[in-house]
Amino acid sequence: MKIESVDLFYLAMPEITTAADGSQDALLVRVRSNHDEGWGECEAAPLASIAAYVGPMSHGICRPVCDSVLGRDVNGPQDITRIALDVPYNSVDLLQAPHVFSGIEMALWDLLGKQRGQPVWQLIGYSRAYPKLPYASMLFGDTAEDTLERSKGACAQGFRAVKFGWGPFGRSSVEADADQLHAAREGIGAEGLVCIDAGQIWGDDVEAAATRIPALEAIRAHWLEEPFQTAALESYGALSARSSKVRLAGGEGAHNFHMARHLIDYGKVGFIQIDCGRIGGIGPAKRVADYAAPRGVTYVNHTFTSHLQLSASLQPFAGLAKHKICEYPAAPKQLAVDITSNHLRPDQNGEIQVPDAPGLGMAVNVAGLSRYLVDVEIVVEGTTIYKTPRLE
Amino acid sequence: MKIESVDLFYLAMPEITTAADGSQDALLVRVRSNHDEGWGECEAAPLASIAAYVGPMSHGICRPVCDSVLGRDVNGPQDITRIALDVPYNSVDLLQAPHVFSGIEMALWDLLGKQRGQPVWQLIGYSRAYPKLPYASMLFGDTAEDTLERSKGACAQGFRAVKFGWGPFGRSSVEADADQLHAAREGIGAEGLVCIDAGQIWGDDVEAAATRIPALEAIRAHWLEEPFQTAALESYGALSARSSKVRLAGGEGAHNFHMARHLIDYGKVGFIQIDCGRIGGIGPAKRVADYAAPRGVTYVNHTFTSHLQLSASLQPFAGLAKHKICEYPAAPKQLAVDITSNHLRPDQNGEIQVPDAPGLGMAVNVAGLSRYLVDVEIVVEGTTIYKTPRLE
Repeated sequence: MKIESVDLFYLAMPEITTAADGSQDALLVRVRSNHDEGWGECEAAPLASIAAYVGPMSHGICRPVCDSVLGRDVNGPQDITRIALDVPYNSVDLLQAPHVFSGIEMALWDLLGKQRGQPVWQLIGYSRAYPKLPYASMLFGDTAEDTLERSKGACAQGFRAVKFGWGPFGRSSVEADADQLHAAREGIGAEGLVCIDAGQIWGDDVEAAATRIPALEAIRAHWLEEPFQTAALESYGALSARSSKVRLAGGEGAHNFHMARHLIDYGKVGFIQIDCGRIGGIGPAKRVADYAAPRGVTYVNHTFTSHLQLSASLQPFAGLAKHKICEYPAAPKQLAVDITSNHLRPDQNGEIQVPDAPGLGMAVNVAGLSRYLVDVEIVVEGTTIYKTPRLE
Repeated sequence: MKIESVDLFYLAMPEITTAADGSQDALLVRVRSNHDEGWGECEAAPLASIAAYVGPMSHGICRPVCDSVLGRDVNGPQDITRIALDVPYNSVDLLQAPHVFSGIEMALWDLLGKQRGQPVWQLIGYSRAYPKLPYASMLFGDTAEDTLERSKGACAQGFRAVKFGWGPFGRSSVEADADQLHAAREGIGAEGLVCIDAGQIWGDDVEAAATRIPALEAIRAHWLEEPFQTAALESYGALSARSSKVRLAGGEGAHNFHMARHLIDYGKVGFIQIDCGRIGGIGPAKRVADYAAPRGVTYVNHTFTSHLQLSASLQPFAGLAKHKICEYPAAPKQLAVDITSNHLRPDQNGEIQVPDAPGLGMAVNVAGLSRYLVDVEIVVEGTTIYKTPRLE
């Protein structure tokens, strides 16, 4: 089948705030071929991503992503892999390319799965999918009291694991951070898992991060996520050596396989967290899972948006029984909820089943999304090269 | 002084081809404050970069670059450094951000230098600037005969060093590549330096690259550049160990300091090549030079466009006498020539003097550029958020 069209839909909440909440907008991708369609979602800045898809060619290795996608034949997994190799080569100098391609790649798997009547996890080589234990992913409250309430709320909803991140953490004193950490632990209870996300707040400053280790050890944190920016491998490695109890997690910023590999090899993370909406899609994410597993590193999805994204992000490690924990956006904005008509709810064991249905197994709620659609038009030399397509 | 305006100008040749020639278009940046102005140039895809500058905020750490720049005070070098730290934090999830900020950062140094009457290399800490030996940077010819002619031509122009890259190299047989290499050597003569740029053709395949080592050794190649994609650190490291004679070069794809550092630490390159128009500007490039020098790694600029870019790219290693060789775009498109009214020509010794004039020391040829200006308009929800500014 030939890729006949790729449509990008920029969706947004009526108000966008400065909270580190990626569910406030979305870039949805629809790929069509022969009356079939597949859907994906980029975890990326919508306008820059649209420009990276449609923008005029700059030179031979700075081509828009559409040049590597439109008109290509996709008859099997190897064709998606081939396109995924062409994009970074043809767009070497277009930094935004992997972010926009990520959603397209997902949509290609979804399309292929629907055509073959197979779930994506089968197409990428797994014979079965294991249930995952979701952790409720939330922002820290402004105060420790707020955080306590949020953590209790997650516990009341049946979550056995929580993750708190961003907000005031790392910005105030060591003592205030310790209060936040104890509140997170108290809310979920002694048996729960507590993950902490520092949101890169310490840049590459190992000493600043190390001051939080005693409190992290005291609350038995399951991991400390992103103390540093993704590229600060030496800082990750140095902090890893500071505690035998608190393992590091990171990788959401990886926009290719190699970046994730380096966090494992040089950064010594214990958990590698991959966002399929950034790393180039499901294929490179699966490659990370294959690399992590034999090295004793646990693969975890990074997902803070819709359940379309959630399904896509579960596929790369669906078949890894021991890689049990999964990120679960616990309090996304309504837009993210409305992107799909079906949802991946925890079952009676509090676990998430990876969809056992063709493609990604999610139904995009086309009719319900028009109200979020952001109208964009890009005109170059008098020619409209992008206009928001109709959602229908 | 407060940053009052940042204007982005997308310039292009009438025809853009698939040659790997980054001088076919340009994204020029003008920053204004108090009747003064500074100029810079991104080495980046223009439309995606414009979108990354102006695009609507996606969330708190996926903000457009303008949010970290406009209205900021710049009274000294430390203010530029502070802005340069804010951009990657506020735009963590906006992949294109460092590419567009690179040109802005250059323009800020140019502006500050003009205000203080000092060249940028003084502002970043050097007490003098040493002349550089330019190598003529060219694409391989389609045939070895073409390459021979080009190499002879560079020699006739007085160049003592050449670099050939891209074109058919690495795409045909080992024998055909050897013919190309010998042609490059023959043209410049036995005393000249010959650098070879593989343009990432082998992805991360060490064995494919290693088959070219005998011919590279035979022609005494000064370096082998970019055998692999920037992130393939293990492949760089493995190939480095295969020859004691051919040293590797790479780094032009680095979009932050850390990526360049990793090519040195893990990739074992002998030459670190930095494009100031991608890495975030002159400040992070200087940080790479500071890191490379004590480790025996030679800093080299990557420049394939205008002499505004060339001046900017010489600043970070202007004060390093032993880091002598510099990339010099030998056959750029007319657009790149026309960007400045003055040019950095080789002197009677065949060397390039880093400008000893305020700022970057280059005069932008405002009147001559209008014919290259690409008219762009971006409209979001009925509001024009970008329209090509007038060049005047």
